[in-house]
Formats: sequence, C-alpha cells, structure tokens
Amino acid sequence: MSSFRLRDLGIKIGNMPTGPLNAITDVAGVLVGHLTLIEDRPHVVRTGITAILPRDGDIGKDYAFAGFHRFNGCGEMTGIHWLEETGLLSSAIALTNTLQVGMVRDALSEYSWRYSQHGPYFLPVVAETYDGWLNDLSASSLTHQHVFDVMQNVHAGPVAEGNVGGGTGMICYDFKGGIGTSSRLADTKSGSFVVGALVQANHGDRPQLTVAGVPVGRLIDYDKVPSAWDQPPQFSSIIVILATDAPLLPPQCHRLAQRAATGLARTGGTGHNTSGDLFLAFATGNHVPARSEGLIPLKGMLPNDQMDPLIDAAAEAVEEAILNALTAAETMTGQQGRTAHALPVDELKRLMVARQ
Amino acid sequence: MSSFRLRDLGIKIGNMPTGPLNAITDVAGVLVGHLTLIEDRPHVVRTGITAILPRDGDIGKDYAFAGFHRFNGCGEMTGIHWLEETGLLSSAIALTNTLQVGMVRDALSEYSWRYSQHGPYFLPVVAETYDGWLNDLSASSLTHQHVFDVMQNVHAGPVAEGNVGGGTGMICYDFKGGIGTSSRLADTKSGSFVVGALVQANHGDRPQLTVAGVPVGRLIDYDKVPSAWDQPPQFSSIIVILATDAPLLPPQCHRLAQRAATGLARTGGTGHNTSGDLFLAFATGNHVPARSEGLIPLKGMLPNDQMDPLIDAAAEAVEEAILNALTAAETMTGQQGRTAHALPVDELKRLMVARQ
Amino acid sequence: MSSFRLRDLGIKIGNMPTGPLNAITDVAGVLVGHLTLIEDRPHVVRTGITAILPRDGDIGKDYAFAGFHRFNGCGEMTGIHWLEETGLLSSAIALTNTLQVGMVRDALSEYSWRYSQHGPYFLPVVAETYDGWLNDLSASSLTHQHVFDVMQNVHAGPVAEGNVGGGTGMICYDFKGGIGTSSRLADTKSGSFVVGALVQANHGDRPQLTVAGVPVGRLIDYDKVPSAWDQPPQFSSIIVILATDAPLLPPQCHRLAQRAATGLARTGGTGHNTSGDLFLAFATGNHVPARSEGLIPLKGMLPNDQMDPLIDAAAEAVEEAILNALTAAETMTGQQGRTAHALPVDELKRLMVARQ
Amino acid sequence: MSSFRLRDLGIKIGNMPTGPLNAITDVAGVLVGHLTLIEDRPHVVRTGITAILPRDGDIGKDYAFAGFHRFNGCGEMTGIHWLEETGLLSSAIALTNTLQVGMVRDALSEYSWRYSQHGPYFLPVVAETYDGWLNDLSASSLTHQHVFDVMQNVHAGPVAEGNVGGGTGMICYDFKGGIGTSSRLADTKSGSFVVGALVQANHGDRPQLTVAGVPVGRLIDYDKVPSAWDQPPQFSSIIVILATDAPLLPPQCHRLAQRAATGLARTGGTGHNTSGDLFLAFATGNHVPARSEGLIPLKGMLPNDQMDPLIDAAAEAVEEAILNALTAAETMTGQQGRTAHALPVDELKRLMVARQ
Repeated sequence: MSSFRLRDLGIKIGNMPTGPLNAITDVAGVLVGHLTLIEDRPHVVRTGITAILPRDGDIGKDYAFAGFHRFNGCGEMTGIHWLEETGLLSSAIALTNTLQVGMVRDALSEYSWRYSQHGPYFLPVVAETYDGWLNDLSASSLTHQHVFDVMQNVHAGPVAEGNVGGGTGMICYDFKGGIGTSSRLADTKSGSFVVGALVQANHGDRPQLTVAGVPVGRLIDYDKVPSAWDQPPQFSSIIVILATDAPLLPPQCHRLAQRAATGLARTGGTGHNTSGDLFLAFATGNHVPARSEGLIPLKGMLPNDQMDPLIDAAAEAVEEAILNALTAAETMTGQQGRTAHALPVDELKRLMVARQ
Repeated sequence: MSSFRLRDLGIKIGNMPTGPLNAITDVAGVLVGHLTLIEDRPHVVRTGITAILPRDGDIGKDYAFAGFHRFNGCGEMTGIHWLEETGLLSSAIALTNTLQVGMVRDALSEYSWRYSQHGPYFLPVVAETYDGWLNDLSASSLTHQHVFDVMQNVHAGPVAEGNVGGGTGMICYDFKGGIGTSSRLADTKSGSFVVGALVQANHGDRPQLTVAGVPVGRLIDYDKVPSAWDQPPQFSSIIVILATDAPLLPPQCHRLAQRAATGLARTGGTGHNTSGDLFLAFATGNHVPARSEGLIPLKGMLPNDQMDPLIDAAAEAVEEAILNALTAAETMTGQQGRTAHALPVDELKRLMVARQ
Repeated sequence: MSSFRLRDLGIKIGNMPTGPLNAITDVAGVLVGHLTLIEDRPHVVRTGITAILPRDGDIGKDYAFAGFHRFNGCGEMTGIHWLEETGLLSSAIALTNTLQVGMVRDALSEYSWRYSQHGPYFLPVVAETYDGWLNDLSASSLTHQHVFDVMQNVHAGPVAEGNVGGGTGMICYDFKGGIGTSSRLADTKSGSFVVGALVQANHGDRPQLTVAGVPVGRLIDYDKVPSAWDQPPQFSSIIVILATDAPLLPPQCHRLAQRAATGLARTGGTGHNTSGDLFLAFATGNHVPARSEGLIPLKGMLPNDQMDPLIDAAAEAVEEAILNALTAAETMTGQQGRTAHALPVDELKRLMVARQ
Repeated sequence: MSSFRLRDLGIKIGNMPTGPLNAITDVAGVLVGHLTLIEDRPHVVRTGITAILPRDGDIGKDYAFAGFHRFNGCGEMTGIHWLEETGLLSSAIALTNTLQVGMVRDALSEYSWRYSQHGPYFLPVVAETYDGWLNDLSASSLTHQHVFDVMQNVHAGPVAEGNVGGGTGMICYDFKGGIGTSSRLADTKSGSFVVGALVQANHGDRPQLTVAGVPVGRLIDYDKVPSAWDQPPQFSSIIVILATDAPLLPPQCHRLAQRAATGLARTGGTGHNTSGDLFLAFATGNHVPARSEGLIPLKGMLPNDQMDPLIDAAAEAVEEAILNALTAAETMTGQQGRTAHALPVDELKRLMVARQ
C-alpha cells in the first residue's frame, strides 16, 4: 500500500510540459501546508486543513487578481462576494470539511490580525468538501489552534498528496481521494507561464472515472476492488484552486477558473446535484498592494489572443491533479469500520497499457 | 432616550399600505428572534444574532424559492452558491458580526442536525456586518450556545428594532443603526401579497441620509448631534432580507432582491467600496419539500406582468426598514468610550414638517 | 416650447462639481453623434440613432475596460457576452429603437470593416428602447446608410439632448423623454477624474417622478398637463452609458455601471417588469490595443478605496442626465395623432422653489 | 462523399439510451427547419439559417422555462437579458452567421407580429457562428424573406445534419462541421424524460478532436486529409441548444445548459479565446402563458435530487451531437477555392476499432 503520482505509473495526461515539481508550487511564491488529523478515539477522526498562500504568504498585503466559477453550487466557499466584486484575492485560502468551514474561516481571519504580519484578512476564502463518510463529523475535531498551526507550516516545494490536509477523509469516483496537484508550462508570445492546480477531490461515481480517455472506472472489477459504499455519502464535491504567474486580469482569471470544468469532464465528472464544484483561479503576475496613496502601477496584461495556451494548461493541470489525488491516496478505514479503497494502481497500469 | 418607529413620528414612506405589523413577520410563517449581548467586562461587548425562519421554522424540510443580489460585495453571506444554483432557501437565516459569521454558520448547521426536528441545514445562510467600532470584536463573545438560544426564541408578531440581535452594535449614516423592518401590501390581479423587509443597517455617511426626499443628514447640525467618529470604522454594510407570500419563482425572487437597491438609494446609500450590501429575497407561496419521490407540485407562478406592485413594495419596505432602524436605535456607548448617537427624532420631525 | 437643461432652471442635483460641458463628452476622446429621423409620410416616423465613440473613434483598435449591469432585462444590448468575457469594450456603441437594433448592429459591424480605419467591430454594442407609441415601427425606417451617416457625424463638445438620435421618440415618466447627459468631477488621492453619463430615457410612470427629492410627478396637475396615454406603450426602458477617464479595471467598471441604479432610483425609477434597464460603463484610463505581440502595458489601477467619489459621481451624473432628457425634450406629436407632452418647466421651477 | 450519423459507423457515445430519432425533435413539440443558401455567383455563398421552435411553434404565446450559460463569450446570442431576467424562453430560436445575426433577429421579430399567429417576439433569441472562411460574408446574402421562409418550413421528425441551415459553411476541429443533433432518455423517479441537443459546431483545433476517448484528431494523417487552412478563420464557436420535456425550473435549466461544457470537453474542446461557446437549455414540462389574469398554474418541478440523469444526458447528447455534425458534414469548397474536408469516416472507423 503506497502512494504514487500518475506519471510514476507511466501515464501521461495531455501534451504540454509540466513544471519542475508538477505542482501548484511551481508558481513562484505559492506555499502549501497540510494539517492532517487522524485519531481513533474518543472519535474516529479523518479530517484536516490545507492552506494555500500566494506571494510567499504576503497575500493579505499584496493582493492578486482572481476569478471564481461555480460549476455546481452544492458547497461553500467563503469570501467570494468580495472576490467577485473586486477581482482580487486578498487572503490565504484554506480547504477543510463541510461542518467546520465556518470555524476555519473565522480562525483564518483571527490568525491574520492577531498573529501575523501578513494580514489582516477580513473576508477570507475557505472552502469545504464533505468527509462525513469516513470522518465522524459530529466530533467537530478541528480547532482555531489547528488553523494557526497549518498557517505556520506552509512551504514551497513538493506538495504532499492523497490522504492529507483537507483531503484526508475524501473519496473520489468511489475510490479513496483527497489532495492532488499538477502544473503545466504555457508558452505565449509574451513568454512562458506556469499554470498550477491543486484539487480537493471528493466527487464522482466509479463508472464515470476516465483516465486519458480510457473508461477505467467501468473496467476495474468490483470483485477485485469492492465499492466503498454500504450507503453512499450524501455529498460529493471538488474544489479546484488554479494559480498562474501570468499577468492575468480578473476576467482572464475567471476564464481560467471555468476551464477547470474541462479537466474535470475529462476525468468523467459531470457535476452532479449534490456536488460542490467550486473553482478559483488567481494570477500573481500583477501586484495590488492593500494600501496605496496613488494609482497602483501594474506590470501589464496578457493579450487575450495569447490566452489559449493557459486555457489548455488549466484543463490539463486539473485533469492530472485529480488523477494524482487518486493514485496518491491510500486505502483508509474510518468510522463505523468503513473502508475506502485506493484506486488499484497495478490494475490501472494494466488497463492503460492494454489500450495503447 | 427612547425608541420610535418612523410612522410614530408622522412620517410616511411611499404610497402603498403596510401590513398589520409593518414588519417582515406580516408574511405568514416568518419568525424572528434576537440574541442581544451587551456586557461591559471583561470586554465591552455590543453584539448579537438575529435569526429569521420562514415556514414557522420548517424551512429545512420545506424549502422556499429565493434569489440573491450583490449590490456591493464587501461582506459575507454564506450559503449563496447553493441558493443560486437551485433558487432555493433551505435553511434558517442568521445575521451577526463580521468576525464570528463562520462560527454562527457552523453552529446553525450543528443546531439543525443535533437539536432540531426542522433540519438539517448543511449550507446555511448567515450574513454579517461590522460592529467593531462599538463592540470589542477581539473578545469573540458569541458561542454556539448563543446560536442555539436564538433559534429557540424566534416568534411571530412584532419585531424588536434598533439595538437588538445582529444589529446591537451597528451604525448607520453615522447615527446609531441596527435592525429595522417594514412591510407593504401589493395588490395584483392574482390577489394581494405581503412584501416584508428586515435590514441590519450599518452603512452610509451622514451627509447622504435622506428621509422621504429631505436631505436630513445635511440639515442636522453637528453642534447639536456630534459625529460618532473620532476614527470611522473600516467597514460599513447593509444586509437586506426580503420575504413575500407571493408564489414567485427564483428569477422573480432575484428581481425582488435587486430592488432593495432602490430602497437603499432613496435613503441616500450608494454602495461605497467597503460596504457589504447583500440582498436576499425569498417567497413562501410555493412549497418545495426537501424530499420528494415524484414531481413536486407547485401552487403556481405570479405572472411577470403582475410583478410591478411587488417591485414597488420591495423598494418602499426597504426604505422604511432602514429608517425604522435609525429611529428605533438608541444612543449607545461602547468600547473605548465611543458613543454612537441616535438620530434625533425631534429634529427629524421638525425638519420633515418644515418641508411640507 | 423650447429646450432647457436642468441647471438652466436653477435646479441642482447632488453636491459634486460638473465637468465643463456637464456631458459625457467631458471625458476626453468621447464623441457623440445623433441621427434623427422625423417624417410624416408615407409613415409617421419619430426615431433615430445615437452613436458614442470612445478614443476619438479609435475604440475598435484601442479597447477600453468596461462593465455591464442588468437592472431589469426587458431589453436588448448586443455584444455583452464578449464584453463580460473580457471586460473590454471593443466597438462603438449605438442606441436606437427596439425593432431595428439588429440592423443597426449589423450595419455598425459592416461600417467598421468596409468604410472605417477604426474597426473592425465583430461583436458591436447596440442597445434599444421602444419608441412605438409615437413612431410607426412597422415602417422599419432606419437603414444601413443611416448608421454609416451617424458614424460620420460624431463629434466632441456639447451633446444635443431630448428629441434627438435614439431618443427621438422616447417617453419618460409619461412626459416626453429622450437623450440626456451630465458629468461630475471626482477627486481622489490619485487625481481628479471625470464621470460622464448619457441616457436614452424611456422609462417610468408619472407618479414616480422625483426631482431632487420633490415628488414632482405627483404634484403636476393632470388638468394642466394631460397624460400622454390613451393606451400606454407596452415597453419602457432606460439605457445608461457611463464613461470615465479613470484607470478602472473591469470589475471597477461593473461597480460603476451598477451605480446607475442609484441615480435612476433617485428620479423615482424602480425597474418595472417591461423595462429594459441596461447599464454599461467604460473607462479610458488604460489602453488595450487590439493587437499586441507581447504583454500589454497598463497605466495602472485606481485603488478600490478611492472608488467612492466615482461611485457617488456615477449616481449624480445618471440622476441629472435623466432629468436633462426630460427638460430638454419638447412636446411631440406622433403616429395616430398621439402627443407626448414635455415636462412643464415653469411648473417644475415653481414646485422646486416652493420646497426650498 | 456521403453523410453519416456516428451510430451508423458503429460508434456509441456514453451509456444512456437515445430517443427514437436521436435528435432534439425527440422532445415532443420541438420543430426544426433549415434554410440553406449555396450560391457560386455573383458571390460564393455558403450560409443559412436554422430555426428551432418549441411547443409546435407556439412558444411566443406559451413560454418555456429556460437557462443560459456562457462558456466562452466570443459570440452573439440575442435575447439573453430577458431570458435571464425571467428564466423564460419566449421566442423561436434561430442560428445563423456572424454578420447577419442582427438582421435575422429583427426579421424573426417582424415575422412574429406581421405574419404569425404565434408571436409576437419582441426580444428573440438568435445566435451565430462565423462561416467567413468558406462563405463570402461581404455579400450579406440572407434576407428577411429567408427568415420568413425558414419559419414556414419547420417540422417535427428527423433533423438534417452537417452542411445545412446555419451550419452550412461551418468548420469544426479543422474538418467540415455544421449542424448536429442527438438525444438521450433520462430515467428518474418521476418518470422518463428526453434530453435533446442541437449544435451549430464551428469550433476546435484538429489535434484536440477526441471520439469516445480516442484522440482521433492526432491520429488522422495530414497526408491523407490535409488541413483546411491556408490561413485559419479568425473565429471559432459552438452554439448548443438543449431541450427537455422535463418540468425543470429556470435554475435547473441553467444547470443543464452549463453541462454542455462537459459534452464539449469530451470531444476535446476547451473554449478558446475567439470561440463563442454559448449554451441555452429550455424545458417544456411547464407552460407559462404569455397572458394570464391570475396565477399561472404549473405542472410541478423535478426534484433536484433527480437531476443527475438529466445532467448526464445533457453531457452525452451534446458530445454525440458534435460528432454527428462532423460525420454528417461533407467536404465543401467555398470562396477563394478553399476546401474544408469532411472527417474521413472510414479512417475514423478504423481508428475506433483498433482501440477496442
């Protein structure tokens, strides 16, 4: 039982080159941290928090242009009224479970004005997916201190995937899901830019799962890998965070955010009724200081007719990030003895080879 | 120092008749409750929670069509991704302060599945305005228990206004603000419907304040009633909740919600940058059960060409609700010895008479 | 029977200074032209086209950031899918009647690639209001040549108001309406900017009309000025175009556009069901060339915390532009002997003086 | 050189059953007509109009709930401000070329009040894609009479695909494109419903083309089938019209419309910058009469938790409709001797078999 990245298995998604880490942290200045909470008593806890901080953490003072897209709205992402009003991301981003998204939101704000040089965040962006099949949500196990802790432990470099952070207890296409990430390099006439994606993947039904065009979900035998469910969870969801170092303006960030739907669709997702499929994209290429006496100088704007490589990159990065969440996640047993099985990587490899 | 309603002062807004209570509770089944927290030590606390429950509390099982409008987005209202996706209100609504809106949101959800026959609410609607000028927000004084308490204390009938519930520490047009409510009866070919508004009014600059067309804010002498501010608060905002018993569909609810901007504009508001001016309208005329095996029968739909009386009613009710918040609110002294003065009602009366 | 501007009557709206022309053309580079078509046979024609060109006409090559807001959608404004996708205005704007808005749209595009150095416009912005009470719409009197003509006759400087261009046959608050314009100077820490508005005003019911807080519509005697209607028109509407020289980004343009609702509300409008109340704002402070090999340099961005003066300016300019349309418009008799009476300016002056 | 449907080639998309015609006309009452204009002199004309009429043509008197989604906005679809304001489709729908979409819009309106018992349409829905690579757009060949003609020639039953109607001159994934249609049957607890799609497919780059997961676009040899382009067209686009007989409310129609992005993504589309990817869904299960004195009775509403089969059906129907457009379209030579090659169906079959 071990954790892989999709490319470790010899499976390639799309045609564009990845960044050096094949992770959202390929976008310079993006820091990620996970707080993973796994306890067996007094409650069976399988939950956590993932934090994403642009600008080496200084996003509360040095805003980034951003856009939001709702593909299916059965979920919560706070802070979006202000993000859409201004086209700016002005806080850290956190991902967690459904029943404590409010606490994490308040604590993130508290952290920013009480303990940080980098805030304040008054309307922070915190999103959730539902881990209540494996995790005993009634325990409300996360605390303000957990939020402060994860904020102290963000870093650049490789990003842990699978059963970590906000993704700890998540399930995707009926297999064990969680956090996944990927990136692409997009060449334009204005230079090369990175597009990175991080997903908290908790969505989909097994027969939908598609890998590089192969209907893997239908081909994996239920005898070999039983379905997770006695009774399926009430809610599925996927949160997608896209980052780029391109100097995009807010409408261009929205365009990028919406393209997460393309990546999702390629893995089989259709945005079912109880899915909270909420997508956010931010662009670090311009700097918008929280305080400015005069006009805010901007580096510039990528011409719209150079957006296509970024559009394609977003689709590929999201597709691969979802699949990385699946191949990285390991089988987990949670509350009530329930087990979510990992996607069987040997079987996956076999099926992919057979189709070539 | 006492509390008035605008009509007690002989001042009438608009031309349409009010409901019997001139309150949002004129819409049958709408219950309102306030939790008001006023403490002087260890912290100076001036905050609270206002809860609004359609359907005699049964909104978590018997949804109502709803719409949302963002006039200016510097604020938080949770639950809106799902509300906009489905056009349904499926939870109680709560109004509170900025830094604990997340806690109230989680607690409202917890209440619904732990203690109530009426839930569950997984994506509840909770909104905030900023009371940090009078209230020591660093105390984070509100608790889950306060949320449970307010949910136990909602009722039909007259609604307390001014320094109560979520409105306790609020300031409006530089005078003491808070909760206000009003209603109108709208006659259509399909019958007469009630449109009720409840506002948590914390917005605006004194020179903007306009009452029935009279620029009251400019006419009241600063010598007689000094400005509240040594240093103005960072954020202003107004939350508007509109209710009607008309059988409106979701797009019609959105139309109603947007008309809150008309009522706001008539009192002088323009939606300044740091204002969270978020409007929600729900309509109880149709019932959408949370669970249904077959098609959900609907009572029907008000023809769009009968919407105008409701549109006008929404504008009038919001205008008067804001003014009721002002005339009901009493002078309050809060943290750091700061005082927010009540709108001087004698002076208001004098000015209004002079203009007739 | 003659044409006035509101300020000629000694009536002042708001508190901010106007630009030198008190017109949208106070924004440098904005050109306006009217094509007015008044014929009595073979058809009674009372219609026209108003063209607005930013950038001294070069908007097809040098785009401007822009935003759109729908206050009530019973109307057509073409080109908005692209404007919202990109946050850019990339064509001239034209205003005309309801039944030929398509022809004007096609002809504007044709003009741009056939006759102009300044195009092409592939998705031009053309809006309409309904003049079919005075104008015999069945005649479809406007032609491609009329569009070419108006595009040749745009100019800087004072803008004709009232019964001209697209406003020729329009009716507003049951009085003769049409084109109106106004402007404000907004001081910010980043300098002073102009906000100009141009409206094609064809909306509202007489009892709603409010001038600087005075319910003029209710106070003017029907005996003195009879109602226009034997049978009211099916549709009312107001198109608002806002321009500024401030370096606003697309979300800030949207904010400005939505504030037209505030100006509209102050004149009494509530956005009735059959009203097409569509608002567009563009900002010329940044230049976005249609073609660019590398990054597009931008001048910068007005900090959001400096938006308030522009927000207030937009509200005031729209309010006064509507009233200018009314005072400038002269009584007109159209098809079927129908007469739309001008707002009686002497009576207006008398009423306003009485209230001071 | 002949025209096929994808299923004639033994290729199946998805897992759901089709309707009897595998066409949008499987939704009872939906009529479709094409006006195809192919001329070689004086101008090389390859254009047309496709009309879609719900309710056996009576949509102007018996409205249908509807929703719109913009996946990428480089295109025009008129009538959407009113459709989004009300959630209602109240006119016929027409699809045509980019430069005459305005004329078709005006003519559709004119037809409705001048010649039809079924109107009037004041704000008709007309969309476009760009056929200017094969078609000499400067000829402006379509006339009001062509619009009247197509409206007289709509019918139930099988729908012609490929080089017909609005799709005549269109190009898709660098192969000859045009009109395509498909349908699915969606079983719910409330019964079985049809979801039908009709597309005017003019989008995409050849390397993107994917058929049932197979990267056909990359596998077809350029030596065997050369690229269409000497110089690629400036604009690509896809218009999707979804219809269902389910009693969906407006937000549910929006959900369905957005799912067209899933079908598009599965064929390889990502929504490039110059693509006008505009999606509309309407639902005939409820009837909203244009005039009603009292409340409009509604049949009911499909519970949201029964939406998933329709969501999946929309994705499958759109995916197959796009592919039907490709397999039905035949090689066409147009202006300047340019040739757009049909997707080679033998090669397609060979590639698909090889992958099984």
